[in-house]
Amino acid sequence: MLTYAVIGTGAIGGYYGGRLAESGKDVQFLARSDTEHLKTNGLKVLSPLGDFHLKNVSVFQSTQDMRPVDVIIVSLKTISNRVLQNLLPPLISPKTNILLMQNGLGMEEEVQSWFPGTPVIGGMCFICSQKREPGVITHMDYGAVTIGTASEKGKKALSSLAADLDSAQIPVTIADNLGEARWRKLLWNIPYNGLSVILNADTKEIMNNPSSRSIIRRLMEEVVRGARACGHTIVDEEIEKMLNHTDNMTPYEPSMKLDYDNHRSMELEYMYRKPLAVAEKQGCPLPYITMMCRQLEFLDARNLNG
Amino acid sequence: MLTYAVIGTGAIGGYYGGRLAESGKDVQFLARSDTEHLKTNGLKVLSPLGDFHLKNVSVFQSTQDMRPVDVIIVSLKTISNRVLQNLLPPLISPKTNILLMQNGLGMEEEVQSWFPGTPVIGGMCFICSQKREPGVITHMDYGAVTIGTASEKGKKALSSLAADLDSAQIPVTIADNLGEARWRKLLWNIPYNGLSVILNADTKEIMNNPSSRSIIRRLMEEVVRGARACGHTIVDEEIEKMLNHTDNMTPYEPSMKLDYDNHRSMELEYMYRKPLAVAEKQGCPLPYITMMCRQLEFLDARNLNG
Repeated sequence: MLTYAVIGTGAIGGYYGGRLAESGKDVQFLARSDTEHLKTNGLKVLSPLGDFHLKNVSVFQSTQDMRPVDVIIVSLKTISNRVLQNLLPPLISPKTNILLMQNGLGMEEEVQSWFPGTPVIGGMCFICSQKREPGVITHMDYGAVTIGTASEKGKKALSSLAADLDSAQIPVTIADNLGEARWRKLLWNIPYNGLSVILNADTKEIMNNPSSRSIIRRLMEEVVRGARACGHTIVDEEIEKMLNHTDNMTPYEPSMKLDYDNHRSMELEYMYRKPLAVAEKQGCPLPYITMMCRQLEFLDARNLNG
Repeated sequence: MLTYAVIGTGAIGGYYGGRLAESGKDVQFLARSDTEHLKTNGLKVLSPLGDFHLKNVSVFQSTQDMRPVDVIIVSLKTISNRVLQNLLPPLISPKTNILLMQNGLGMEEEVQSWFPGTPVIGGMCFICSQKREPGVITHMDYGAVTIGTASEKGKKALSSLAADLDSAQIPVTIADNLGEARWRKLLWNIPYNGLSVILNADTKEIMNNPSSRSIIRRLMEEVVRGARACGHTIVDEEIEKMLNHTDNMTPYEPSMKLDYDNHRSMELEYMYRKPLAVAEKQGCPLPYITMMCRQLEFLDARNLNG
């Protein structure tokens, strides 16, 4: 049984950290605006798997006050990744692994370069969850996690990490190839996040209109092309599967849309610019994704200017 | 000196028909909601070239009440082109030419197929004008017209038409090749109309942000590729010229944005779908324009549903 620190107690960190704590693991939480609320009222998770309320959570406002752990779960938005260089050192011992529960491509390599001695593991979260008020996480659907790493030392930690997740009602898969798993996650994230912002629409509206549906398909085809250019195997059938899957989802506003609507920065760097740059480097330009990325950059700049 | 009928007394028909009438030509106007206002108050044109007020205009609500003319100026939005089959016959004599002052591609061929004996001429209007209230046209900038036709009989009418326009303070150019002139006009219309709707932005905002500016350039490059695939000669320098030209324009909301903001249909058929189809037929897919067209189709459908 490993010890945990959750960096960012939002829709992702609050849910997964909450599940781990509920199953009896030692979990410390780093929070920002919610700190006092969490200390006083604890953490509530509303979930189709059963609601639960952690009355005593170990919450901190600074990592300086926290103990080193076996697994640091990073569940900040990637736009804040730079601060990890200052945030994480107090939590790191020779036994520590860093688990990035984030969306995008290339975060692991970058974080690994900042902490060469500490294995960095990627966590792909297939979940619909939101934090709608302080200290309350609403879990709507799904919840599985895929973990994988390029670090040999990190690979040794995967099975005990998987066992802990499994014991906490978190379905878990270990991916042989982290890069491929990241691209596979982008197959959903790249089309739906961006288009929901540009069209101000949820997944259902997007899927029900033949024009926007055709954009989604073309974007997915480009993600597959990008993945293949990088040497990964994603088969065409995965596109149909993802489309059908989204057809059957409860109408959903992706996290990027919530960020945009709340005038927060969008995660464009790792979700769009990095995949584009990596594919471009392999001689594989992706015009649909490029166009969407440039549109999102315009909207992001205006949105943050007030 | 030719006689004229203007079909659609809006920002385009009101301006050009108004100038022709002001210069002494016989001009009949077909209007819709403005008919009574125009009969009572006449037509006002506010223009940097000098305002004028036509106190007595020949206005009709139906072409059934109008006389045949030498030139029918069609200045309806292309979304209404179907109705021309019913509207135009009363105005047509063996001497009549039809001048389409519209944006897009392929309108002339279609209208020509409806009226095989009557030459159809294309009119490309380089103008910023708006109808902001009944009977008042606000001319902001520019105003030149390029005319051209694929009809041999129509070609004979071009010089007397040009002379009339010239005498009405309308700078006019005769294009040798109508198709090429149409594509050249699309070089501005395709990028700015669509992007101003999708980003809810005017030309200045679009040009000042490097991301949206790069989209404009890519869209222009695709228009040039489409034109070339159709055998036309548009040189790369025209892109730079058009970008510089737009940088120096008074910030402008293109007509498609005004249509969208007022919950009117957008001119997607002739401005996007026809050029895409024609280029595709030549084996030249245009992904940026395709993506924009599909986004606009989604927005159009939602906009018209309320």
